[in-house]
Amino acid sequence: MTCTVTVLGATGSIGRSTADLLDQHRGRFRVGAVAGGRDAAALARVARDLGASFAALADPAGGRDLAQALAGSGIACGAGPAAVIEAATRDADLVVAAVSGAAGLAPTHAAIRLGRTVALANKESLVCAGDAFMRDARRFGARILPMDSEHNALAQAIGEGRVEDITRMTITASGGPFRTAPRERIAAASAAEAAAHPTWSMGMKINIDSATLMNKGLELVEAHHLFAIDAGRLDVVVHPQSIVHGLVTWRDGAVTAGLAMPDMRVPIAHCLGIGERLSIARGRAVDLAATGSLTFERPDEERFPCLRIARAALAAGGAQPTVMNAANEIAVAAFIAGRIGFYDIAALVEGACEGFAARYPAAPADVEEALAIDAEVRRWSEARLAA
Amino acid sequence: MTCTVTVLGATGSIGRSTADLLDQHRGRFRVGAVAGGRDAAALARVARDLGASFAALADPAGGRDLAQALAGSGIACGAGPAAVIEAATRDADLVVAAVSGAAGLAPTHAAIRLGRTVALANKESLVCAGDAFMRDARRFGARILPMDSEHNALAQAIGEGRVEDITRMTITASGGPFRTAPRERIAAASAAEAAAHPTWSMGMKINIDSATLMNKGLELVEAHHLFAIDAGRLDVVVHPQSIVHGLVTWRDGAVTAGLAMPDMRVPIAHCLGIGERLSIARGRAVDLAATGSLTFERPDEERFPCLRIARAALAAGGAQPTVMNAANEIAVAAFIAGRIGFYDIAALVEGACEGFAARYPAAPADVEEALAIDAEVRRWSEARLAA
Repeated sequence: MTCTVTVLGATGSIGRSTADLLDQHRGRFRVGAVAGGRDAAALARVARDLGASFAALADPAGGRDLAQALAGSGIACGAGPAAVIEAATRDADLVVAAVSGAAGLAPTHAAIRLGRTVALANKESLVCAGDAFMRDARRFGARILPMDSEHNALAQAIGEGRVEDITRMTITASGGPFRTAPRERIAAASAAEAAAHPTWSMGMKINIDSATLMNKGLELVEAHHLFAIDAGRLDVVVHPQSIVHGLVTWRDGAVTAGLAMPDMRVPIAHCLGIGERLSIARGRAVDLAATGSLTFERPDEERFPCLRIARAALAAGGAQPTVMNAANEIAVAAFIAGRIGFYDIAALVEGACEGFAARYPAAPADVEEALAIDAEVRRWSEARLAA
Repeated sequence: MTCTVTVLGATGSIGRSTADLLDQHRGRFRVGAVAGGRDAAALARVARDLGASFAALADPAGGRDLAQALAGSGIACGAGPAAVIEAATRDADLVVAAVSGAAGLAPTHAAIRLGRTVALANKESLVCAGDAFMRDARRFGARILPMDSEHNALAQAIGEGRVEDITRMTITASGGPFRTAPRERIAAASAAEAAAHPTWSMGMKINIDSATLMNKGLELVEAHHLFAIDAGRLDVVVHPQSIVHGLVTWRDGAVTAGLAMPDMRVPIAHCLGIGERLSIARGRAVDLAATGSLTFERPDEERFPCLRIARAALAAGGAQPTVMNAANEIAVAAFIAGRIGFYDIAALVEGACEGFAARYPAAPADVEEALAIDAEVRRWSEARLAA
């Protein structure tokens, strides 16, 4: 049976890996809608390559370029937020939600409200509005398949097991480029140095988050929502080889783990198969004898305070993760622009968490409230930076 | 609901660990029968401790001692092979088959013919008569739960997955005491040196098998039968820390793995729970940051020819694994007795495999034929050693 797949964020890193797999398994998949951000030409190319029936560009200004690039293809298209929502809500057996940032919330949520099966790579959906997302997934019968390598590994390690039998869920961190660097060197790091990720090839923002370990903090929040597990049973271990991605410790002392070479196509393939296993052409196999050694160490929350801040935000609950994420986005952008130093990221985020704790004690009730808090914290953070 | 458990091999290493867990979860389990080999006093003690309803000693000469030791307890008892079969076939929700050696075949098979759920720690059942065992398990609706740490880890790593989606199943080997030793030193090793197992505390015979890596050869045969997987997809990797026990590589490149500290109570608890997770008091948790490094290397089949011989026997099929196991038992006993050197074990086993290849091309049709071949190869091996 053909599986109809919609890809939101089709021109990004995850989207391109998804397209590679859809292309390798053409007989199995039909591509419904594809959505991209600003690059009309790239979106038109992927829409043509995959034989999509609809293409949506988030940027309204790119609508004409997209229409021209798709002329004669028979592929319908649109531009602007409503077009992206149309893409998200067109009929599909699986929606790959790989838009990055807060822009991913509305279309992902629209798919969830239709009870779709959603392969989730948009961290912000769960970090900003996790309670609302999971509640609506239950209410509308949507199934969420975790597409992040760590959460996908955890899902594979959990299998049919019950979360109440789990004593610990551990995600791994590569440790980033500053894993072994002294604090003074980290404090003086440039954005280019921070973005040099040792094992994964990702975008600039996520590479900086890997360097601060905020990435793992966001992933702890995601894991909390995805697996309905409390903060006290969630843990991070540094594992520079990035081959073990997640571990589940069971009540009886057994541990199940999910491993893979650092290649996003592995978790993507796992989601695309929806319970069946796809093959991956040109994939690298895990070969532990060739790797030789897998090493593990505790994260150092002195040198990487963002992890400590994220743990505290998760433990505090309410809107703290929403606030944390918004402040972090502004702080990372400022760091990339050379406006602030590495440790100023943590300082700004911690300031925001403290500043908004009393104002927003409860978790956002819905996506709209999450986006409103997000916007307010961004403004606050910008003002703080300008001060 | 109380689960009635019968323990065959109750006085051995696995049996004692099983008893520890049954004792920790008294409300959950009722102990039906217990069976032991020769130690009437130890068997009576475990029968009393666990409140068993029946105790059977394999050695007929120990019947009187057992009866005396159980006097006044209200626990029925018997001695000799028929008593052990009675223990195996008494009503039970779970039969722990932990008799070691060929003596375990008949009682384990008797439980399987009654369609029982059998937690299998007796390697010989599958190594000597795997085809017959698995066929009868299917025919009589028996469920086999693997209790060896490696196979239990594989079962946990497989979860609800399908064997046809698996490209490789890997079991780990500690490497034994001679992992880094040069061939000349290994060749001159005494039984005491060979039995000094680095990570597990087990019996003498199994420790020698760990030193030769024959243990892993036997486990490959077991895995072949337990998981209906062909020899070409089975692999061994040396992992001196003995924390990762089994790995499953899936078609999409994902790997799921089963880990635990080297403590037999972990796989035993997994089996006793029959799908639910028991807690283990006084268990050690896996702590990868504390462990620091997990290392892996390819086994050296030059220094450890038994692994090569076992692979060949598994690939050849027929009665070769039966022959190999019988010759190995005699060879290991002779090595322990100081009659032969370390590499004479492999030579005798290989000689037996070659010598019986034409005589027994087919797998034993039933347990009786397996035991007959076993006996014949033992006689042949003894004669060869005496020559």
